[in-house]
Amino acid sequence: MSSIKREILFEGREKRIYKTDDEGQVIIHYTDMATAFGGIKRAKVLNKGKYNCLISAIIFETLSKAGVRNHYIKTISDREQLCSKVDMIPLQFIVRNRLAGTTAELLGVENGTKILNTVYEMRLNDDALSDPMINRHHAVALGILSYEELETIFQLVVKTNEVLKELFAKVGIELIDFKTEFGKTGDGTIVLADEISPDNTRLWDIETGEILDKDRFRHDYGDVSTSYKEVAARLSKLETK
Amino acid sequence: MSSIKREILFEGREKRIYKTDDEGQVIIHYTDMATAFGGIKRAKVLNKGKYNCLISAIIFETLSKAGVRNHYIKTISDREQLCSKVDMIPLQFIVRNRLAGTTAELLGVENGTKILNTVYEMRLNDDALSDPMINRHHAVALGILSYEELETIFQLVVKTNEVLKELFAKVGIELIDFKTEFGKTGDGTIVLADEISPDNTRLWDIETGEILDKDRFRHDYGDVSTSYKEVAARLSKLETK
Repeated sequence: MSSIKREILFEGREKRIYKTDDEGQVIIHYTDMATAFGGIKRAKVLNKGKYNCLISAIIFETLSKAGVRNHYIKTISDREQLCSKVDMIPLQFIVRNRLAGTTAELLGVENGTKILNTVYEMRLNDDALSDPMINRHHAVALGILSYEELETIFQLVVKTNEVLKELFAKVGIELIDFKTEFGKTGDGTIVLADEISPDNTRLWDIETGEILDKDRFRHDYGDVSTSYKEVAARLSKLETK
Repeated sequence: MSSIKREILFEGREKRIYKTDDEGQVIIHYTDMATAFGGIKRAKVLNKGKYNCLISAIIFETLSKAGVRNHYIKTISDREQLCSKVDMIPLQFIVRNRLAGTTAELLGVENGTKILNTVYEMRLNDDALSDPMINRHHAVALGILSYEELETIFQLVVKTNEVLKELFAKVGIELIDFKTEFGKTGDGTIVLADEISPDNTRLWDIETGEILDKDRFRHDYGDVSTSYKEVAARLSKLETK
């Protein structure tokens, strides 16, 4: 059996990755740890691991149906997913349907500014350099990927945004922005390989404007666990329809 | 006559722009003022205005011959050029043939790192925001330009780099990077509309590696005026061949 939990392969801030008997597969365990501002702010959020495991599973399944390749295989417990093992590409891909957070600050506009286009950003995954915003030319210059591989990822990112905007709209949530990462499987295929959950999205209730994402934790708005639970509940209901 | 000097239209850190009798033309006066780090460091550099006026005139003429539209009409004194009046686009376009300066710091690589591709960057011209590095999606989101206009500029930037790399190579100088800006003329045509001189390029002697640009001023390497004079002298000789 490929899903027997074994030694830890990687200990992240909010997740743990375990080896399995199958060299091409890992188990991803979602913890209740929440961190922000590059790990400076840290706290436990009740059942966050469970909610994110559920939310991201629904999202991975939706993406797979829409043809967006990703590392998810199946959920094996309420906090654990069996996934393809990938070599992570050290880049973060951010999609913005409105300007919020650091980008709103960078550009000197109001948080949540509506835009007519979609903004795509890239950051270098490097704690020591504070994950600087870069562009595709920098990524190629650093030898991380080729222009062709970046174009492949860009197409996946565009599609992911289309699919997720529609998914969240169905449950009364506006997808303001999200961040994701990609990896290469053993045969070199590029797949989406990072959870998509309230941890790395901005999700605003369409009716009330209520914030249902990690900004509640970042900025001490309270009800963090309740908000994650709400997102999980709405998506779950949709799935069983 | 269109070239009679009149009232000041704009007083920059290192240049002054005067109105002329012709509404479509301005006079650009190159001063000896040198500034760096967003204007925090300031000093006079002997005859810098004269050298930059000469260097940029040679560059504008070379670019015009190669089909790169720019605002330069003619030189009218040793510190003054008659140029088309343009509405400046508030973006800086940077081209890097090696990684140096702020980008080398951003990416955590050595100053002057060789690369296999060419790196193109964009910055928002906004002192209050410290001219942040942005990408084309941000520029479109802010309503500054359309994607099509940005593509037009990108083509001009690529061509400018090709032409200038070749020009400087002829006089034994490697063009490490440069920054330029664009504007729109009365009929909406996008033209290159910022001097290109040792003020906004990195120029390294191919034989000795000697720095011949504003980094001498920024980092107090001395011989600032001598270096600008050297660049002007080399380009002038080439022109009269």
